[in-house]
Amino acid sequence: MPEAPELVAIAVRADVFEAALDDALRAGARAIVAITAGLGERDQAGLTLQRAAAERVRAAGAVLVGPNCLGVADTGTELNLTWDAIQPGSVGLISQSGNLGLELVQLAQAAGLGFSRFISVGNQADLDAAESLQALIDHGPTRAITLYVEDFGDGRAFASIAGSAAAAGKPVVLLTIGATAASARVAHSHTGALVSDSVAVDAACRSSGMYRVQTPLQMIDLLQVLLAPRRPNGRRVAIAGDGGGHVALAADRLIARGLQVETFSDQLAARLSSMLPPTATTRNPVDIAGAGEEDIVNFERVVRLIAQSGEADAILLTGYFGGYSEQSEDYRRSEMEVAGTMASAAHDAGRLFVVHTMYPASPTSQHLRRLGVPVYADIDAAARALGRLADRMVNPALGVPAPLPSPTPSATVPTDYFGTRHLLAVAGIPFGEARPVESEPAAIEAASAIGYPVVLKALGSLHKSEAGGVRLAIAGADQLIEAFREMHARLHAAAFSVEKEAPLALGVELLMGVKRDRHFGPIALVGLGGIHAELFSDLAVAFAPVSAGQGVGLIRSLRAAELLIGRRDARPLDLEAAADALAALSRFAAARPEVDEVEINPLLVLERGVLALDARLVRQSAEP
Amino acid sequence: MPEAPELVAIAVRADVFEAALDDALRAGARAIVAITAGLGERDQAGLTLQRAAAERVRAAGAVLVGPNCLGVADTGTELNLTWDAIQPGSVGLISQSGNLGLELVQLAQAAGLGFSRFISVGNQADLDAAESLQALIDHGPTRAITLYVEDFGDGRAFASIAGSAAAAGKPVVLLTIGATAASARVAHSHTGALVSDSVAVDAACRSSGMYRVQTPLQMIDLLQVLLAPRRPNGRRVAIAGDGGGHVALAADRLIARGLQVETFSDQLAARLSSMLPPTATTRNPVDIAGAGEEDIVNFERVVRLIAQSGEADAILLTGYFGGYSEQSEDYRRSEMEVAGTMASAAHDAGRLFVVHTMYPASPTSQHLRRLGVPVYADIDAAARALGRLADRMVNPALGVPAPLPSPTPSATVPTDYFGTRHLLAVAGIPFGEARPVESEPAAIEAASAIGYPVVLKALGSLHKSEAGGVRLAIAGADQLIEAFREMHARLHAAAFSVEKEAPLALGVELLMGVKRDRHFGPIALVGLGGIHAELFSDLAVAFAPVSAGQGVGLIRSLRAAELLIGRRDARPLDLEAAADALAALSRFAAARPEVDEVEINPLLVLERGVLALDARLVRQSAEP
Repeated sequence: MPEAPELVAIAVRADVFEAALDDALRAGARAIVAITAGLGERDQAGLTLQRAAAERVRAAGAVLVGPNCLGVADTGTELNLTWDAIQPGSVGLISQSGNLGLELVQLAQAAGLGFSRFISVGNQADLDAAESLQALIDHGPTRAITLYVEDFGDGRAFASIAGSAAAAGKPVVLLTIGATAASARVAHSHTGALVSDSVAVDAACRSSGMYRVQTPLQMIDLLQVLLAPRRPNGRRVAIAGDGGGHVALAADRLIARGLQVETFSDQLAARLSSMLPPTATTRNPVDIAGAGEEDIVNFERVVRLIAQSGEADAILLTGYFGGYSEQSEDYRRSEMEVAGTMASAAHDAGRLFVVHTMYPASPTSQHLRRLGVPVYADIDAAARALGRLADRMVNPALGVPAPLPSPTPSATVPTDYFGTRHLLAVAGIPFGEARPVESEPAAIEAASAIGYPVVLKALGSLHKSEAGGVRLAIAGADQLIEAFREMHARLHAAAFSVEKEAPLALGVELLMGVKRDRHFGPIALVGLGGIHAELFSDLAVAFAPVSAGQGVGLIRSLRAAELLIGRRDARPLDLEAAADALAALSRFAAARPEVDEVEINPLLVLERGVLALDARLVRQSAEP
Repeated sequence: MPEAPELVAIAVRADVFEAALDDALRAGARAIVAITAGLGERDQAGLTLQRAAAERVRAAGAVLVGPNCLGVADTGTELNLTWDAIQPGSVGLISQSGNLGLELVQLAQAAGLGFSRFISVGNQADLDAAESLQALIDHGPTRAITLYVEDFGDGRAFASIAGSAAAAGKPVVLLTIGATAASARVAHSHTGALVSDSVAVDAACRSSGMYRVQTPLQMIDLLQVLLAPRRPNGRRVAIAGDGGGHVALAADRLIARGLQVETFSDQLAARLSSMLPPTATTRNPVDIAGAGEEDIVNFERVVRLIAQSGEADAILLTGYFGGYSEQSEDYRRSEMEVAGTMASAAHDAGRLFVVHTMYPASPTSQHLRRLGVPVYADIDAAARALGRLADRMVNPALGVPAPLPSPTPSATVPTDYFGTRHLLAVAGIPFGEARPVESEPAAIEAASAIGYPVVLKALGSLHKSEAGGVRLAIAGADQLIEAFREMHARLHAAAFSVEKEAPLALGVELLMGVKRDRHFGPIALVGLGGIHAELFSDLAVAFAPVSAGQGVGLIRSLRAAELLIGRRDARPLDLEAAADALAALSRFAAARPEVDEVEINPLLVLERGVLALDARLVRQSAEP
């Protein structure tokens, strides 16, 4: 080579990778992009080789991307080491999967979005997703960042960087896998990743403000509204279209996604009526009932009037509009002009303007996208994206807690029932009265002291109530003896707990706990008690520790929150006390690295105060 | 005209519609397609005119489609009175919205699906959706039927016809609106429709076997698998692809949609391993890890092996495949050939074969669609469609009950609490002990007779517990007096009920009821008690009356069913008794047209038997 290369891409077989790397470093390369696969993701020997390679690169003062990656691209400098053309734009893309990265590129192109930089990080032997994320935050032309990550490394550090991206006005959208054992198996083979529990990823998003999506298409759908020139300040959406079916369907979908389609004022409805045919609906949704076919400028008039009324935070145009430009040259000109003036009218009034159209690839649709207007082919995709913005307004990022103290040697925590109760009570969590017993006479004595009705629990099983190890509503000594003998015979339990029966009917039972994730550390979670949270997938999560104030936010974000807050005239339950308990539990577990998992289920929330009715603790095993 | 026209399309203004209709009938037209809008959907005068027009058409022995419609098409006879080209195919389409019909045509084309007939029924003055549905069932070339309907007319008759379509092997997919007040407002203006409650539409689907979808795109996504040459016999899906990210993501989405991605046997995994690189995963999902790039025939080998193994009911190929055909002429030939042999291998083994690809418009993707293989651009769309097939296996159509007896004059049903309890108890629903009281001494006497603890309810409010009109766990006379006075003062209640406290902690509370819909008649519903069913959108519904056997099916289809059936060693609750109560309640309400709504909330389900703890009844008002 005539001069030293700045960057060398290595795409040789694994068995000659080392030699190629040496050549590149010797030639003076400052950056290595290693496409080569079959190293760290293959076996221990490959991992060793990969680590050594990273060491050598660092020792040479260079940087390594990959191996097992698809390359990098920077559309600002026309660098493209991937195998597809990449449309320039303002989205930064970091992907641990080459093909998923390419799928995003394909989908983005259809949506009129382009990329500033694409970094396929592969096995992350040297440069990892977190460093790439930081680089994109510092990169001027990048306005939004998308991530496909399997292995988060130091998850807390990663989340902290993501949190600073949001603060810099660059939304971060995250796609990951590992929600199921099936995908976790693959990830390990794919990039050597040990994936995080899906709950931990959710917590990282709740704390850092990353938007989590489930598919590449959802990612692109969401990016469209995140990059739009206006952000709504509330949930109110106005719907307009030329056709009753479309506007009605849009209303159903928007409301299903948590948005509001509020009835317009008499004044606005009257002004709309005055310019539309008598069969039009003007209260929101607005069906202009053929007025667009008669004069295409009517679309603009309607959108302008709504935008200026202040009666909606966002305006959705749905249905046929966009398709005129496919009919004739004349129509093309007039529809594109109307599209432009409509978008300006909405933006000038500070309103987000979004379009769903039957003709998403038409000249007008492409024109709208160039103006920054999100355009969707699927009404539910539009509704889902708008719903995410609205959810974020209600549930903002909680913030990533300061780094946790490093593990210090501590007395081993007990995992037995009474030991756990004691520790948690000391930590500030109120428990109901309970006494350990191992014989029938002791049980009767305990029950007399506590006062009937009592509850008898067989100890020794982690999930007492599911195993039939809890007998409620024991009214007297005879019932107590019967229950004792029955459980003793059936469960072979040697130790029991006699407890005061709590006024279950007067409160609501929550589950709260902390689970330690290998990447993200301790995760606080709260939901409805028993198995309800799991059954209905209604769990609020965040990095532990959480403050009491954050705890209130988490509980309020549950669908089940309505049970606590009360409806109509019913008195609300003590949400603050529940949040205090969550904060105490999360502090307790966050400060003790040896606690792998701790759970209170149920925590009974009453009109005043809370009562923990059961607790269990799992110590971290010696094996990591 | 040289001879009498068989069909006349009328597209004149509303004020000259009548004259044009007369001309057409005079000329001998046997069918009128009325595009004209501004009649029945506009005002009373228009409705009168529209009705008269329908009468005249019928009197002339002719048939009327519309008015306010977009026309009809029959691709078998090259009749097309719509304003778009329609791809021929096997889907019959009935739509009350012209534009939504056109959107379906657009989306279907992208998915490689075509239409046999398109009937835009508009205001349904003469020919309605039900008759059109019957016509499509009888129409040989139609293999599946899609409906967009706002007004179901006689909903039971409609559902019966839909039920017979399923029996004829023609799946029916339904899109409708009216889930929200906002869309109901529009429907009334749009086609004059008074929409049904969304719950009633769900019941019609559960009873008749129609598939309900939420958007046009979901409709097309589902049609693809419904029209595929093989139907899976179980939930097990095998996933294959050349890329870990894609196959892992597919696993997460499929499992989220209720499918199973089971680990392959050692034998199958070993056979796959022997033909794939060492970095491949072979346990399901299968990541062939570059083997496809090395030799594209490896895709076929893998799919064939899986199909023949019998270890999956359906096979999903995900990711890059489909894109080779865009690279070069050589690749195009080989990829299309592999696509064909792969599809044959799966079909020959009786397995459904489905593809998700980054290149949904490529030559190979189009080729696959021509072979009947569903091809998706969005992995979640594929997962959702497969999930619907799996759900149907578990929850088959319940059948549409025989026509209900026509309303006969009957003694007016009482709507007060004790009157309702009495009627329902006679109907076979077990209630806990309760006594009406209006004074403190009477309350104390009642409580003594019943035995403490008791519950005190203030009567007169429909939603007692939400209004704070229920006091639980009253242990003695002092507490009873205090509760009586407090409720008397706060709620101004004059009448109370003293009731035996039920063992709430030992059971699970359900809600069950029957609601009368203007089109579909009485609808039976069941879910978790309190407001849980609503909060978590977990309600099972069907046409009333339901049998006890159907009641079991409904309760089992709830996500909440797990609470009743029990987990691990816990004993199951008396699901049969709950189903008996639902059957009794549904028979009661179905037989009494004057009952607009009746609800038991909660019904406590215990290990043995059930106890209704509250009931309310709403009589139909005189106004329809």
